[in-house]
Formats: sequence, C-alpha cells, structure tokens
Amino acid sequence: MSTARSVDDLADADAHVFVPDLDVPRLDEGDRHHLVRVLRLRPGQAVTAGDGQGRVRPCRIGADGGLEPCGEAVEVAVPQPALTVAVALTKGARPELAVQKLTELGVDRIVPFVAERSVVRWEGERAGHHHRRLLRVAREAAMQSRRAYLPRLDEVCDFTTVAALPGAALCQRGGRPPSLAEPVVLVGPEGGWTAAELAAGPPAVGLGPQVLRAETAAVAVAALLVGLRAGMVAPAVRR
Amino acid sequence: MSTARSVDDLADADAHVFVPDLDVPRLDEGDRHHLVRVLRLRPGQAVTAGDGQGRVRPCRIGADGGLEPCGEAVEVAVPQPALTVAVALTKGARPELAVQKLTELGVDRIVPFVAERSVVRWEGERAGHHHRRLLRVAREAAMQSRRAYLPRLDEVCDFTTVAALPGAALCQRGGRPPSLAEPVVLVGPEGGWTAAELAAGPPAVGLGPQVLRAETAAVAVAALLVGLRAGMVAPAVRR
Repeated sequence: MSTARSVDDLADADAHVFVPDLDVPRLDEGDRHHLVRVLRLRPGQAVTAGDGQGRVRPCRIGADGGLEPCGEAVEVAVPQPALTVAVALTKGARPELAVQKLTELGVDRIVPFVAERSVVRWEGERAGHHHRRLLRVAREAAMQSRRAYLPRLDEVCDFTTVAALPGAALCQRGGRPPSLAEPVVLVGPEGGWTAAELAAGPPAVGLGPQVLRAETAAVAVAALLVGLRAGMVAPAVRR
Repeated sequence: MSTARSVDDLADADAHVFVPDLDVPRLDEGDRHHLVRVLRLRPGQAVTAGDGQGRVRPCRIGADGGLEPCGEAVEVAVPQPALTVAVALTKGARPELAVQKLTELGVDRIVPFVAERSVVRWEGERAGHHHRRLLRVAREAAMQSRRAYLPRLDEVCDFTTVAALPGAALCQRGGRPPSLAEPVVLVGPEGGWTAAELAAGPPAVGLGPQVLRAETAAVAVAALLVGLRAGMVAPAVRR
C-alpha cells in the first residue's frame, strides 16, 4: 500500500489505463480495443487502472477482456514541485509531439500560448478542436508512460497570462540554467521573443550554445527539470 | 579569433551552412534555395559557413545570392567528453526524429543498432538508403542548430558492437543516473532488453519512474548529458 509499491505496480503492469470509476473499473471501447487488439493482452495479464488524479488500482484482464480488480486502490504522492511548460504556437510546429513528450516525461501542466511572433492563432471552434485533440494525445501518452496523474492541459492563452504565472521563466540563449526555483518555463516561437516580451519581466533560462527548435527546447528543459526533481542531476554550481 | 567569439558568431548569424571548401565557400543549389527562398535572406545578411569539422568562417549573402566571406575561418573547440547515443531500431519508431533532436542538442555520435527485440532489420540496399536519409537529416539539423561539428552517424550495427564501446551504459529503469563517466548510452527497443542483453555487461542508467518511448528516452538522456557537459546541471548527489 506504500507509494513506492504503487509506482512499481504501474511500471510492472502490462498496461495502464484511465477509467471514470475506480470502484467499478470499466474499459471504454477504444481502450479495450487498444489493450486486447493492439497490445494483445490475454486474460490474467496485469493492468493498472487509474483515475488520473493520483489513485491507482491493480487489475487483471478478465475472461471477457474486461478489467478485474485484484487489489485496493492506492494513492500515489503528487510530485513536487509541479512543473509547467508553456509552448508558443508556431507555424509548422508540432504541438502534438511536444504534448506527447512532455506528458511522458512527467510535466504536470502544459500551456499552449500565443506569442507576438506566433504566426498561428487558434480561435473559436478551431481552438476547441485543437484542445480536444491535445487532450487525447496527453491521455494516451499518460497511459503509455504509466502516470498516476493526468497532466493539466490549458486552453490556448496569451503571453501576458503565462508570463504572470508564479515561478515563470523565459527560455532564452544566455539565460541562467533551468532550476526548480523557476518551475514554469515558457518556450518561445521559432522567431524568438520580441523586445517587449523580453522586457516584460520573467527571468531568462538558457539551454546551452545550440539553437534549438521550439519543440526540442521544450522537451530538453522538461528533461532537465524532471531530472532535477527526481534527483537524477543536481543544481548547477554557480560560477 | 577566440573560440567563444566564434560560437557567438554562429548563434548570432542569420543562418549557418556547411560547405565543402571554406577557402572558397560556395552554396550548393539546395542550400541556396533554403537560404534565399525559404529563410528569405537578403544581400548583406550574416551567414556562417562551416566545414562540419570545427572550422567556421563568417560570411554574408552577396548580391548574387552567393556567399561572400567577411573574415577568416576560426576553429571551435571540440566539446568534451564526446557524447554517443545508440538507438535500437524499432517498428514504428521514428529514427529521423531521434537523429534530428539528438543532433540539435549536440550529441557527437549517433549509432542505430539492432537489438534482439528489434522487429525491424535494415539490410543491403535498404540499409544504405536509410543511412543516406539520416545523414541528410543530421546535416540539416546541424545547420539549423548552428553546430561547428557534424555528428558522426554510424551505419546500423549489432548490439554486441555498441555494447562494447568504451563508456557504454544501457538505458534501463532502476539504473543509476546518467553521468559523463558513461558518455555512451544505448536506448533499447519498445519491448525492452532481453535477459541476455542485460547480462552482457554494460551498467544500467535510469531516467526516473516514467516508462518512456524509445525516442523520448533518447532525447531525455541526451538533454541530461549535454546539460551535465555544459554545466547547466551537476552530477547527482549519491544517496
């Protein structure tokens, strides 16, 4: 029933799936198809069911291809601090790819936003369509990577809103190293930040000498922050 | 003429391009099209020309759309230690994506290899075709990210060969944190390593509790190793 055990259950299971009700875990048609037809799970194989809010219950595949609970639900501790990556919309960018990778790595909140040099805008019905698509990508990636918590995926917002988030920093060459003291990182569009955006306030964090595509920068900063949070690496020594 | 200056030249230029001869830098048709038609560079704009082996020469776009040198070539120091990521071939994997991202981040050598659970094989003409395509991806990503050195991209090889590289480690859950003491990381196929591969010798390095897609693991470990090499993060404190 310990937290460590439940995380092992997650990683050791043959699959992980989110369900609306952990007391009576049921697969929806899409997930059943994925588990039984794509992953080819057979009766008896271990699956963890999660509510996406930290509770996880060990189950197995039943004779009918459904879920059979085989233990009580346990609560997985919330990772601290919460990590947020805000990604500027960009022409030709692949927000699905960023959302998939950021979710796999364990980012807690993903915020698409419009920067001054974002050529793309998502408005009205189009914004809703994109948001629903990204929610599906995040859910699938969270199941694939065995997350107890679904990431929060905001609707598209503007620069001022994300820049005002507590702990925000802008990704910018020459900035100081990423740090858990600035757990909210804004990644700009390919054309870079405008002078007004740079002057708006958040400190800059840098990712070394290379010039990175926006999606690469988002994934790299997430890997470093998650690595710092998990103790895989330590904060840079100030020189 | 200093190394630091030449790195700034690279990042500050409007574009970076590889040419066969730095003494007489000439654009090939594809690169000229990219600079003039896609990036829409105009005469006078700054471009760095590189030989892909560390030498970089500042140029500008001439009246005819060609390259005009405007300074001597300088030598950029080789980043130390050299970082290698070996990526197992996998069905449905996207080696182009891994090669693009690893090149952008600054990985020095990329080795595609066949693991026991690699469903895919590249053989004969097909191997040559894939290798040429990945070389193009690496060259474009190295120009985009302003690298002085092209990464080395090996032809596909077998597990035994990559596992025998000095400083090799296998990416595996529960392993110790990535470290510059093991600058050669092997990322396995989606199905994981076999018992024989795990027993073959290289130590395991882990990337935290999440179960990552192979391409995500490759990019995350590269971000951590490059971050360690650049001093953005420090080695984990042993606990």
